[in-house]
Amino acid sequence: MHLVAIGGSDAGISAALRARELDPTVDVTVVVADAYPNYSICGIPYYFSGDVHPWQSLAHRTHADLEATGMQLRLDTLATEIDVASRRLGVVDATGRPSVIRYDELIVGTGALPQHAGIVGLDDLGPADGVHVLHSMGDTFALDDDLIRREPRTAIIIGAGYVGLEMAEGFSGRGIHVTQLQRGPEVLSTLDPELSSIVRAELVAHGIDVHTGTTVRAVEKTAGGLAVHAEQEGRAVIHSAELVLVVVGVRPNTALLEQAGAALGAGRAVVVDEWMRTGIPHVFAAGDGVVTHHRLLGVTYLPLGTTAHKQGRIAGENALGGSARFAGSVGTQVVKVFDTVAARTGLRDHEAAAAGFAPRTVESAADDHKRYYPGAQPIGFRITGDHQTGRLLGAQLVGRLGTETAKRVDTYATALFAGLTVDQVSDLDLSYTPPLGSPWDAVQNATQAWSRARSPLTVTI
Amino acid sequence: MHLVAIGGSDAGISAALRARELDPTVDVTVVVADAYPNYSICGIPYYFSGDVHPWQSLAHRTHADLEATGMQLRLDTLATEIDVASRRLGVVDATGRPSVIRYDELIVGTGALPQHAGIVGLDDLGPADGVHVLHSMGDTFALDDDLIRREPRTAIIIGAGYVGLEMAEGFSGRGIHVTQLQRGPEVLSTLDPELSSIVRAELVAHGIDVHTGTTVRAVEKTAGGLAVHAEQEGRAVIHSAELVLVVVGVRPNTALLEQAGAALGAGRAVVVDEWMRTGIPHVFAAGDGVVTHHRLLGVTYLPLGTTAHKQGRIAGENALGGSARFAGSVGTQVVKVFDTVAARTGLRDHEAAAAGFAPRTVESAADDHKRYYPGAQPIGFRITGDHQTGRLLGAQLVGRLGTETAKRVDTYATALFAGLTVDQVSDLDLSYTPPLGSPWDAVQNATQAWSRARSPLTVTI
Repeated sequence: MHLVAIGGSDAGISAALRARELDPTVDVTVVVADAYPNYSICGIPYYFSGDVHPWQSLAHRTHADLEATGMQLRLDTLATEIDVASRRLGVVDATGRPSVIRYDELIVGTGALPQHAGIVGLDDLGPADGVHVLHSMGDTFALDDDLIRREPRTAIIIGAGYVGLEMAEGFSGRGIHVTQLQRGPEVLSTLDPELSSIVRAELVAHGIDVHTGTTVRAVEKTAGGLAVHAEQEGRAVIHSAELVLVVVGVRPNTALLEQAGAALGAGRAVVVDEWMRTGIPHVFAAGDGVVTHHRLLGVTYLPLGTTAHKQGRIAGENALGGSARFAGSVGTQVVKVFDTVAARTGLRDHEAAAAGFAPRTVESAADDHKRYYPGAQPIGFRITGDHQTGRLLGAQLVGRLGTETAKRVDTYATALFAGLTVDQVSDLDLSYTPPLGSPWDAVQNATQAWSRARSPLTVTI
Repeated sequence: MHLVAIGGSDAGISAALRARELDPTVDVTVVVADAYPNYSICGIPYYFSGDVHPWQSLAHRTHADLEATGMQLRLDTLATEIDVASRRLGVVDATGRPSVIRYDELIVGTGALPQHAGIVGLDDLGPADGVHVLHSMGDTFALDDDLIRREPRTAIIIGAGYVGLEMAEGFSGRGIHVTQLQRGPEVLSTLDPELSSIVRAELVAHGIDVHTGTTVRAVEKTAGGLAVHAEQEGRAVIHSAELVLVVVGVRPNTALLEQAGAALGAGRAVVVDEWMRTGIPHVFAAGDGVVTHHRLLGVTYLPLGTTAHKQGRIAGENALGGSARFAGSVGTQVVKVFDTVAARTGLRDHEAAAAGFAPRTVESAADDHKRYYPGAQPIGFRITGDHQTGRLLGAQLVGRLGTETAKRVDTYATALFAGLTVDQVSDLDLSYTPPLGSPWDAVQNATQAWSRARSPLTVTI
């Protein structure tokens, strides 16, 4: 039995680890396009901020750790073609020399690629010009080299999603002045603007020059550096800087599986079922390249590292004949931006409406712990529930670092997983001690606010 | 309609607030034994530590806040007798003058009283002798007066539960040397010794003199102060100090309801159903004086402020004709001891076995966030699950302050509420960003350790 996994990131490595864990007799080969298997891509911004050093510590496991599990790593090896009928994988090594790897079961975890969002100039400009993306260790080294070589004092970050915000913090910490350009009306478009505006204020307080409602049209090299041509409220604007970082999201990297006959679905990602089967015999797929089963939405595309780990683990088990099933995402996400933490899980109002729910969203705020104990700080909440069924549909939270906001969202995530109603969150038996909570925890204060708005209480029962 | 609530603490005030919230036309009177309604008894240790000042800020709501809701407060008024047939409550005021309050519906929230645990001398010694309990604002003032008047440099705390540990920290912060005596084999007997020993180490690191396995027999006033006679490993020992604080738990305060004909159940607390009905016509009860419906154990006695708030709220709604039902406790508790946080929810191994489950408990540790990001610290876990059904039965966690341990226990509490299996906790979509978590959160690392121990993976599937 020879199991081959393609991809050295979360899905591929998780699959290989799970297979070796379940059956140490199975031969496992992981085909990795670069020389950096099992690196924490989510950690790259913290290398640039200086929190992480050396860069090698970004590895979840070292090369030696991985080989100690008994898996074989084929580094600097690009998978080029799947021969489904004969179960052979075509690859080329770093020198361009092609070869073939026979497999019994194949797991594809080729992930995603940075988007360019139709911005003119990005196809021709690269690290040598001071224009960067940030999706691999190769990108990391290129950016790092550029920062060391040119010591730019100004940077434009196109995009204000998770990586964009983390990189704004990272550049800022190095003394680089950051201009952040965001197409949407507010930074962090995964949250409602009422809460993401708090994140924007945190950026501004740290000297980031934030421009929302700004659609970037082109990036151009000029005599003095780089010019970013954009449109803001119908006006043409030009921002200039010595360096440009483009972090406007990702698209699934599906070429290999498409060639093998896989179908594309939501977000033009490869269709898989909950067992991570592609429908192609002996070929599983997992991670940022495939669709996501979502407990509230059904099938969608929502690339997240946590999901890739889970899907990879399931693919690894099922490739050995198991029957593990991906339990589904609820879209839980969190980001730290300077001293602010923003989290969400489940659906926002418009997402829930589009999915056929009858959503109502109620905003509230509650202290992270009893006000009489020093250091209490408010957490802002937006709770979305179905006003017909009472079912919890989603929660958004923004609080200061130290308010346990990141793990408070997990209470809602768990409630969503279990299909609880908003009222049932108020019934939960949550922990309380005055320095760390309240008798009704802040998360319950928020659900009670929702319930009051749904059924005004002034009516006599 | 006249609703009368007895008790100025969590249950009584929650009931009154809920009734006024639901129907502002209903007359609500709260009979409060002292002059301090709606004080946070859980916060008292932080008054002594100096974190909270003045003592008035311990009030969840001020007297004016409460009256603004439209409820009437009868302070310094002791309820002495319930005349069930005529629906009249006998009370005496601070001068000893008796009177009668007519009610349509009555909610009894008389709470609990400090235990003396059979220690000889406690019936005769009190604050004037330097011997204290700590269960009311009156106790707080007595202790505070004593500390100011005598400035003791040494104290013995009998008991090492939540209040005992918090008071050890409080006294220690004031420069008082603390000797802590605990009957059980380890401090914080609500956790397994493997984890509570971490709490003990934290106490010792802060100069607390901890003596476990020490059964106190008597407290005696001596020429030089106070002597505590105890037995440790079969030997008689005497500890001396200028002040003694006895915090060895509580017993339900049931006299009033017993006289009215209520039945006593678990822990000799008043029997109530999930609607907080006592069985006595028009008499509800809630809080530390009544039994607790527990989602895993059935009916037990587990006095907690969080539960009292929930039960009071339900009693207040049902007294107005509602049909709210207490969803049940899962026994979630947390305490901060210096810089350590210890939490639990659900059942420990022996509790689960006694309740008819087939428990297995597995210990593990995982970092609160990715190790490459500064400040990662391990959290210790003990997960209890049913090895036949796979159901999650309980979780215990100990971590440093700042590791979000208090809100991580809530994920398990929510999973317990929903009846999830241990494996399903591993399936949860929990939040991740490198400074605050891991792709598999620490709580999932712990459940995966349990699953591995249950079904050793070396077997080929």
